[in-house]
Amino acid sequence: MKIGIIGAGQLGRMLALAGFPLGLSFRFIDRSPDAPGGQVAPLRVGALDDVTLLGELAREVDVVTFDWENVSAAGLAAIEAQTTVLPPAAALATSQDRLAEKELFRQLRIPTPEFAAVDSERDLERAVARVGLPGVLKTRRLGYDGKGQKVLRSAADVAPAWQELGAQALIYESFVDFSREVSIIGARGRSGETRFYPLAANVHREGILSHSIAPYSNRGLQRLAERYLRAVFARFSYAGVLAIEFFVVRGRLLANEMAPRVHNSGHWTIEGAVTSQFENHLRAIVGWPLGSTAPTGHSAMLNFIGRMPERARWLKEPNLFYHDYGKEPRERRKLGHCTVLEASAAARDRRLKGLLRLRERSISVA
Amino acid sequence: MKIGIIGAGQLGRMLALAGFPLGLSFRFIDRSPDAPGGQVAPLRVGALDDVTLLGELAREVDVVTFDWENVSAAGLAAIEAQTTVLPPAAALATSQDRLAEKELFRQLRIPTPEFAAVDSERDLERAVARVGLPGVLKTRRLGYDGKGQKVLRSAADVAPAWQELGAQALIYESFVDFSREVSIIGARGRSGETRFYPLAANVHREGILSHSIAPYSNRGLQRLAERYLRAVFARFSYAGVLAIEFFVVRGRLLANEMAPRVHNSGHWTIEGAVTSQFENHLRAIVGWPLGSTAPTGHSAMLNFIGRMPERARWLKEPNLFYHDYGKEPRERRKLGHCTVLEASAAARDRRLKGLLRLRERSISVA
Repeated sequence: MKIGIIGAGQLGRMLALAGFPLGLSFRFIDRSPDAPGGQVAPLRVGALDDVTLLGELAREVDVVTFDWENVSAAGLAAIEAQTTVLPPAAALATSQDRLAEKELFRQLRIPTPEFAAVDSERDLERAVARVGLPGVLKTRRLGYDGKGQKVLRSAADVAPAWQELGAQALIYESFVDFSREVSIIGARGRSGETRFYPLAANVHREGILSHSIAPYSNRGLQRLAERYLRAVFARFSYAGVLAIEFFVVRGRLLANEMAPRVHNSGHWTIEGAVTSQFENHLRAIVGWPLGSTAPTGHSAMLNFIGRMPERARWLKEPNLFYHDYGKEPRERRKLGHCTVLEASAAARDRRLKGLLRLRERSISVA
Repeated sequence: MKIGIIGAGQLGRMLALAGFPLGLSFRFIDRSPDAPGGQVAPLRVGALDDVTLLGELAREVDVVTFDWENVSAAGLAAIEAQTTVLPPAAALATSQDRLAEKELFRQLRIPTPEFAAVDSERDLERAVARVGLPGVLKTRRLGYDGKGQKVLRSAADVAPAWQELGAQALIYESFVDFSREVSIIGARGRSGETRFYPLAANVHREGILSHSIAPYSNRGLQRLAERYLRAVFARFSYAGVLAIEFFVVRGRLLANEMAPRVHNSGHWTIEGAVTSQFENHLRAIVGWPLGSTAPTGHSAMLNFIGRMPERARWLKEPNLFYHDYGKEPRERRKLGHCTVLEASAAARDRRLKGLLRLRERSISVA
């Protein structure tokens, strides 16, 4: 069976690496001929909304999926007539618009930070008055890794923030004073079968995921998160892996955003769960039984951003799983990650501390 | 860094799948355009002793390795001037000749079954007289999966066996009444660092590996096997993964054969050990630190031969890791395997029993 993947970044590449042992083969589309997926499967180069290119891909494969949120929903819709596209294009379209996403959460009774749509400077003033300060002004579309965001701390920030971002449709959200960020990842198969991974706790730096630990064990929050994910699954008759990121505020979960795809905060599942998020995404979209999401230990995942560390030093680390995406180094770019697996949460936390120091050192001297 | 692999069978394919996350890329040579490795990396098609083709590969990569024992040693020698070839061609040449292999074992004081070279019917009569009956007459070269072998039970079998196999150089070996077959797999890095996996116990059917369990825990045999493997490593200043298969006879190990490459009886290491044999082979030949060979549980590995079973049924099995090599079905051909991982040896043995029955059923009705 052949899977087409729109976007050949590291997520697409890890999907393919998880799928080969299942007997699947892959075809990619990406804007760049150097995209990491192209090293493991044939890659067509072109715009991700090029309907001709998408049509060629659709004719060649059995199921089309995507590794990137900002895939053209219009392009996807055009090929849905030709082949199966999963996750559903409607879920993708919702996740591409922060306002539609927050409105969906509200409809499904999934708590979110306060928010208001902003289409003019006047709207922004009203939004600040209603939602309060501090707050975050965000572009509704095409934001990721902290791009297209501006924190407002006082009324004096309104005009400059509008100046900077006002050319696009915006959303203003209350600034959440969270105690922790967590994410839930789950899979829903074409038959409706669902499986949920344990929560991961995530730490971002400058808007980019720095590291995650999993399982983040909290029975109450796990139950809540699964309920919310289930509601989104049901809304879209979803198939595939879906992630929701939450802020934890006084024991409650506030949904920040969702991703209708495999997610960076689930990379630990490659070695730290019985079945990885990548394999379960493929099982789900192809219509095969899902695999166990049980953790096999206590994992910490660290991203390598901007520069890869010295490989030989890191390969010496016991129980460490090294992932180099084969990308050219560039500032703020995710180039790889590693996961360590320990028998207890305490051992994992100690290990994480040491590795964060090692990463700091080895990337600064690299 | 680029690795060239001569032979693009399932072993080469699993090497590539293990190497991508390390940031390695791959180029294959194989006789068949449909070879499984060609689905995951570029493949040149041609004879494995085509010196022009091998030269092209050598120029393009940093290290050349092989996934098959019957690679032309002459071809390898020709490209050794151009690039690094590992494991050493001398180890490969020895493993290609059952007589040279047995003589090496004898020199290194590694016990073997009784054996004698056979180049004439007269030799065979003398060998039978000296080594005894029953015995096995084997071609010295190009035998695998039970091909090119003939069991002799009485003096009357001598002439027909000579008729059948006598066109080639032969070896006659005493028939070993073994209680068990085991194999040891280890890796030696370019710096001389060594790591050993625990013994696997193997069951063959009609000369082809049916299933393995690991670890096969026997401290005394483990120590012996590691000593023998170490002796072979030292002899060749070896780098890469090496396997030796043994018969267990009254608490002693008798070496049957060696394979200077990753080995079917080590497939369990993909999920059942911290670092797989495939990853350690690559780490070893590239010159990186080796990874831990510690088992993560109790594994059973079952081969799928001739036909693949019904995938959806097998994917329902808990803690089962499914591997489909993407090959066309053909009698006696290894098409895939699966590994199950359990917390105890007893649970693993029960699980294996059930899966052997399931395999019997699902392949016969497929």
